[in-house]
Amino acid sequence: MIKINENFLKLKAGYLFPEISRRVSAYQGKNPNANIIKLGIGDVTQPLVPAVVKAMHVAVDQMGDKSAFKGYGPEQGYAFLRQAIVDNDFAARVVSLDIPEVFVSDGSKCDTGNFQEIFGIDNTIAVTDPVYPVYVDTNVMAGRTASADENGRYGKIVYMPCTAENHFVPELPTQPVDMIYLCYPNNPTGMVATKQELRKWVDYARANKALILFDAAYEAYITDTDIPHSIYEIEGAKEVAVEFRSFSKTAGFTGLRCAYTVVPKELKAYTADGKTVDVNPIWSRRHSTKFNGTSYVSQFAAAVVYSEQGKKEIKADITLYLNNAKLIRTGLSELGYTVFGGVNAPYVWLKTPDEMSSWDFFDLLLSKANVVGTPGAGFGAAGEGYFRLSAFGEPENVKQALERIAKI
Amino acid sequence: MIKINENFLKLKAGYLFPEISRRVSAYQGKNPNANIIKLGIGDVTQPLVPAVVKAMHVAVDQMGDKSAFKGYGPEQGYAFLRQAIVDNDFAARVVSLDIPEVFVSDGSKCDTGNFQEIFGIDNTIAVTDPVYPVYVDTNVMAGRTASADENGRYGKIVYMPCTAENHFVPELPTQPVDMIYLCYPNNPTGMVATKQELRKWVDYARANKALILFDAAYEAYITDTDIPHSIYEIEGAKEVAVEFRSFSKTAGFTGLRCAYTVVPKELKAYTADGKTVDVNPIWSRRHSTKFNGTSYVSQFAAAVVYSEQGKKEIKADITLYLNNAKLIRTGLSELGYTVFGGVNAPYVWLKTPDEMSSWDFFDLLLSKANVVGTPGAGFGAAGEGYFRLSAFGEPENVKQALERIAKI
Repeated sequence: MIKINENFLKLKAGYLFPEISRRVSAYQGKNPNANIIKLGIGDVTQPLVPAVVKAMHVAVDQMGDKSAFKGYGPEQGYAFLRQAIVDNDFAARVVSLDIPEVFVSDGSKCDTGNFQEIFGIDNTIAVTDPVYPVYVDTNVMAGRTASADENGRYGKIVYMPCTAENHFVPELPTQPVDMIYLCYPNNPTGMVATKQELRKWVDYARANKALILFDAAYEAYITDTDIPHSIYEIEGAKEVAVEFRSFSKTAGFTGLRCAYTVVPKELKAYTADGKTVDVNPIWSRRHSTKFNGTSYVSQFAAAVVYSEQGKKEIKADITLYLNNAKLIRTGLSELGYTVFGGVNAPYVWLKTPDEMSSWDFFDLLLSKANVVGTPGAGFGAAGEGYFRLSAFGEPENVKQALERIAKI
Repeated sequence: MIKINENFLKLKAGYLFPEISRRVSAYQGKNPNANIIKLGIGDVTQPLVPAVVKAMHVAVDQMGDKSAFKGYGPEQGYAFLRQAIVDNDFAARVVSLDIPEVFVSDGSKCDTGNFQEIFGIDNTIAVTDPVYPVYVDTNVMAGRTASADENGRYGKIVYMPCTAENHFVPELPTQPVDMIYLCYPNNPTGMVATKQELRKWVDYARANKALILFDAAYEAYITDTDIPHSIYEIEGAKEVAVEFRSFSKTAGFTGLRCAYTVVPKELKAYTADGKTVDVNPIWSRRHSTKFNGTSYVSQFAAAVVYSEQGKKEIKADITLYLNNAKLIRTGLSELGYTVFGGVNAPYVWLKTPDEMSSWDFFDLLLSKANVVGTPGAGFGAAGEGYFRLSAFGEPENVKQALERIAKI
């Protein structure tokens, strides 16, 4: 008899975005002429830049030419892309990596979701609250948690609240944890971690033989010069951290699928009886057994992101999004809202007025301003009383949204 | 302390293709002028067909145009592709499927590797021997097996030998099994299963509440009109089988990454206490949590495979490969070899002469004919005494390889 993995039955329904859709549709149904502005979704809106488009046409022609055709590529990615990553994303920031430490993939969602598979079920995981739900749900599937309580918090997970009080960077846990998920610049809060704050975590992980899973998908949005772009800018981090990077938000690749994970040679894990195991070859085995490489066309396109012209063009898009963020941040501040993020990230995280619940504020914004955002409670219990606005969109729409919010 | 998943430590080294490479390099090193013909690898050699290349240029231009740009797509795939799959691969063969039963992915290796995740660790798996190693290795990683013995066979797995005696379709197991991996047309043997043989398996699975994981990646190579292309051509199969399909070998997409899995609404699994669970929504949850959709460019390209022009052009490539297979099959037969497969599949499986071991035959072919194939023992203990030649390659090379083999 085929038995289901009953851990899947512990999962709460994917509530947030379907519920937003439902409420928006219901409102639009009753108000067919309402011109709704959506600032809820974390997806890019600018098309691929010309340098990338041009490169993709070259790659497509290669795929149609017998002498240049590429079949299966290396599961870990082509050397031309991995070398460009090592040189541009790391050597330029005085982080020295070798090609075998970089694993190209089809997305950071997949990487952050899959990486936990190579570790034992008995590890305790720690996540921030609010949190990107994939970190939690994939650990539920794997069996590292108990059932969820009425707040949607799963047993055995250590939730680390991130609120205005701690500048949205969590305190060190008071109980032992083994796998720590950190995301900076953060989704959903748009806040960053300083070198000092990250050093605290690296030191903790080294002292406790814990693993940090560092999600740097929004690294390209960092504007403050003293904010680290990579956790490997912290001394000793290679012994205790993997880092996830993506071309999705950097270069608009959400529809193309290309990302990568760094697994340093120095990174160790342990057997139950305390023997040391190198993590890099274990991840390589997982990656080459359950994955078969990223589309050659996407990899060729990703490499062009590092060309001079590519860098210039994607910088213009990032600037556009960051200008949107600035508009939202300053506009809401002037209206008296307490706002966070939006300086080094494409998200603005605001405190709902008058202790309003985040879903009530959602409904207010939808019905009175025809603006859609994301209720903070959807990212975790500690997100209650907060609200996320995304800077992905057209500047004119952002301006109009702010004018409407001002009239509430 | 971060504990490794110790199941990974049970994995034997990925022996086969690295060892082939090693022996080929060593030979080439000593014989720098040898013109080695490689018929060992299961990768396509023809470039993408013109209709696909043309469509990809269109998709690339869309991605560079604000009004047509595609960001995140549905994790399960775009409706335009899923509809084309339903209409062409199934309705045309009188199998009725709905769009929600089709999950587009980035490859059948990923799908066949990932699908086991949604089932309990205590299920017993059954695989053919010889077998595509991904089925086995991913179950080792998940913890469904014990350690490997000296023949590389993992404890707790039920191995079902496929040899000339049973026409390379296994006997029903004599002990209870829960997850049965079948691949037809088969890699590596190149053999097919008749309707009657598949019916035997569907009836077994229905009687025992077992699951069949049916890998039909080579379906496009079926030439015999009475061989089923889909397991759903067998009555009742929707209750007990998932099916994996790919554009890799069908349309040369090994470097583009596009495949799909069919999970029928009727398919059930069970909780430990015997409650029935629908498998489709569980897979959907896994797919949308640990995966973020296939490249839009690859999906757009895949849809064109179903156009009239696309079908005509990919048929020409498949015919080229099948003609190679015929050359190998008939050429070797005339030389007195006992050969199997190669009629409905791009692989020929031959009995090594004089009970020679498959690695000895590999060395003989390499040194005396400068031809590289794949030793059967690399696919499992029951593959010993057999050898795989791939039909992917240039017809002139295949002819030359046969002339050289004739001279041994």
